[in-house]
Amino acid sequence: MYSGHRQNLMSLFREFPSDVIFLKGGSVAHRYDTDFEYPFRQESNFLYLTGIEEPDMAALFDCKSGEYRLIIPRRDAQFAVWMGYVRSADEYAVMYGPDHIMYNDEVPDWLKKRQPGTVHCLPDAEGDIRQLGLKSDTGHLKDALAYCRAIKSEGEIDCLRRSAAVANQAHLDLMHTVFPGMYEYELKAVFDRHTTQSGHLHDPYSGIFASGPGSAILHYTGKNRMLQDGELFLVDAGTEYRGYASDITRTYPVNGSFTPIQAELYDIVLEAQNTALNQIRPGQKMEDIHLSAARIIIEGLRDAGIVTGETEELMEKNVFALFFPHGLGHLMGLDTHDVGGYPKGTEKIDRPGLRFLRARRTMEPGMVLTIEPGLYFIPALLEPAFADDKYSPHLNQKKLKELFGFGGIRIEDNVLVRDDGIENMTNVPKSRKEIEHVMNR
Amino acid sequence: MYSGHRQNLMSLFREFPSDVIFLKGGSVAHRYDTDFEYPFRQESNFLYLTGIEEPDMAALFDCKSGEYRLIIPRRDAQFAVWMGYVRSADEYAVMYGPDHIMYNDEVPDWLKKRQPGTVHCLPDAEGDIRQLGLKSDTGHLKDALAYCRAIKSEGEIDCLRRSAAVANQAHLDLMHTVFPGMYEYELKAVFDRHTTQSGHLHDPYSGIFASGPGSAILHYTGKNRMLQDGELFLVDAGTEYRGYASDITRTYPVNGSFTPIQAELYDIVLEAQNTALNQIRPGQKMEDIHLSAARIIIEGLRDAGIVTGETEELMEKNVFALFFPHGLGHLMGLDTHDVGGYPKGTEKIDRPGLRFLRARRTMEPGMVLTIEPGLYFIPALLEPAFADDKYSPHLNQKKLKELFGFGGIRIEDNVLVRDDGIENMTNVPKSRKEIEHVMNR
Repeated sequence: MYSGHRQNLMSLFREFPSDVIFLKGGSVAHRYDTDFEYPFRQESNFLYLTGIEEPDMAALFDCKSGEYRLIIPRRDAQFAVWMGYVRSADEYAVMYGPDHIMYNDEVPDWLKKRQPGTVHCLPDAEGDIRQLGLKSDTGHLKDALAYCRAIKSEGEIDCLRRSAAVANQAHLDLMHTVFPGMYEYELKAVFDRHTTQSGHLHDPYSGIFASGPGSAILHYTGKNRMLQDGELFLVDAGTEYRGYASDITRTYPVNGSFTPIQAELYDIVLEAQNTALNQIRPGQKMEDIHLSAARIIIEGLRDAGIVTGETEELMEKNVFALFFPHGLGHLMGLDTHDVGGYPKGTEKIDRPGLRFLRARRTMEPGMVLTIEPGLYFIPALLEPAFADDKYSPHLNQKKLKELFGFGGIRIEDNVLVRDDGIENMTNVPKSRKEIEHVMNR
Repeated sequence: MYSGHRQNLMSLFREFPSDVIFLKGGSVAHRYDTDFEYPFRQESNFLYLTGIEEPDMAALFDCKSGEYRLIIPRRDAQFAVWMGYVRSADEYAVMYGPDHIMYNDEVPDWLKKRQPGTVHCLPDAEGDIRQLGLKSDTGHLKDALAYCRAIKSEGEIDCLRRSAAVANQAHLDLMHTVFPGMYEYELKAVFDRHTTQSGHLHDPYSGIFASGPGSAILHYTGKNRMLQDGELFLVDAGTEYRGYASDITRTYPVNGSFTPIQAELYDIVLEAQNTALNQIRPGQKMEDIHLSAARIIIEGLRDAGIVTGETEELMEKNVFALFFPHGLGHLMGLDTHDVGGYPKGTEKIDRPGLRFLRARRTMEPGMVLTIEPGLYFIPALLEPAFADDKYSPHLNQKKLKELFGFGGIRIEDNVLVRDDGIENMTNVPKSRKEIEHVMNR
């Protein structure tokens, strides 16, 4: 899998035979100025190209020969006392299969001898390269990695499926468990136990475990609230398998039964999601699908008597964005918000070596993305809108004020774009009937 | 509790009435160049002085008046959409009770008007201060904070006890749960569930869950090994309550019954720990207690036929350090390896304002520390020793080679130094009888 990724990348640098690529792996991160170490997680670009999950590595790629040169740290004997091993270059050669291997202190001499026209690197290595008196370029490598990573290889798809499978189980278990009186952190404990006991030791993002009004806070970080009878609970959480993320959201009633208004609003979001899922195929654009989902949401709100007006006017005035203020989804892979999605200024780029970035906004087979429409009642958005002549004629203030404590609903699945549509990797109950069945079993 | 901490600190700056202290709080940390956010954890010095657990704050302290000025960020309305709130200065004033409150963009003007002789800060703020054309000092504040934090207040001791109580329960549950065939990550899941469901959302350090040979790796980071019948399992894990750490280690047989050699070696470590615990009282020095524990260990190894020689010679030649190569313990508080312990070069410091650092190595009431003797068979240490004339006459190579896969044993408790001895906050079975009882219940 990783040699395939390297070949993909190097195929984009064939036109620069005098250049080399220098990529640093990650190091252990510390909490402020202390010796607290965050559990090591490899930098995603380095992981994509090498599969190596230990710190302090680097790699050189020769744009002419395509050769992959792994750069390993020199460790002293004390390292073995604390970390259990000091591996030799030969051992690393067997473990990771590079074309060549060298120690980090050998890099300067090697580069000086190789005399590359340009060293392509990411910003974190720019200083090192310039100190050697060499020319560096940080834009091209970043774009090329984003280009490659946007389309998943078979191996990556398998990892994403495994990640999703564990997250599916954790979400299902949570749905069984939730009841009024529990605390948000207790539900995090249930979710995390599932992922950790599956050997998934990294979170792809800080999960959201939000009850009641908290579910309308898009980046809710609190976890200390007690779930109340009659409220909704929104959980947005996933896991990582070999670095590959899952990112799933479900929203359901704390007590296991939707109230009439919860049911009405929930079905709007579910219909928006189903509409979006049915629309995904190669050639489609994310922004068009976003607008389709937004249209369902605003029409649903009109049917519920919460907004008024013609669909076209509500869409044109972006009234939907008061209730659905975030994007429909994002690419997903080694980063939860993965690279290669919708880089700004894409259309303007047409210089050599960057042509491959064109048309990035169009879906292609092998892309993996989240589809996550949402519907929220956010006082910080609605109160200014009540006072705004553009919006106020369309808003039923009385009904909306009643919904200020309601929170929000989001439903998020992870899908693979295929030639003929999608593979939905998420398999967690999402119809009201299924949810109520699971919760009341 | 926090106003007491501020008073402690300010009492050390009375001799500098023209100065001010500027302290930055923490910000959300990201994983490499991505939007992955680590869950926010306040910087420990800022937490010590303010109790504030949200990001992007700062504080100014006036060395003349002692006044505490909280500095809050200006947030735009968009922040409320994503984070749920934008609090006003008045709301913050009520929440945190500073003497004054101001926005971060008001700091430069305030400082220019105040014209401090020196701005005491930590290195992360040095650039900001110098940019304002003011004189900065980074040494004094760091030392003063370490001095204050080394002696715990009543409120801090209460937090440490609560942290210990949850860790005690998690360790006990783990001891019940362990059996051959489980994976290390499954045991981490058991431990973490306990802490998370108690609302303890931060780890004070990356726990060690090490089976068999891994238990001899002092910073073992692996978690993927299956526990084998007949091996030892070493777990070094704790939790955080309001930032305050617990840090407990237990070692026990995977199958619930000590083998004769495990029992013999275990009892050596337990005796070393008990000897150390009995010796702690104000006025004692950590290095003396360390040597007492080391003496027990080396004598125990001699009784077991693993080393040979007179005690004094074994101690003088540091033979014990081949088996017990780390420190006996460390101060513990808002950082697991807390500040204020044993700063290097302490004896040499005798300039104004730093006198309070004297005699830091002597125990005082209110210090909280770990006592964690260990006994390990580390090939990376023993193999060179076999070839070293200084050590080899004292080592029973045959027996030691048989123990190369044995791993290690560590027993770690968290204790508060009191006038008359200690309070041991750790309450997890540690005699062989208790452990076997719990494991076979």
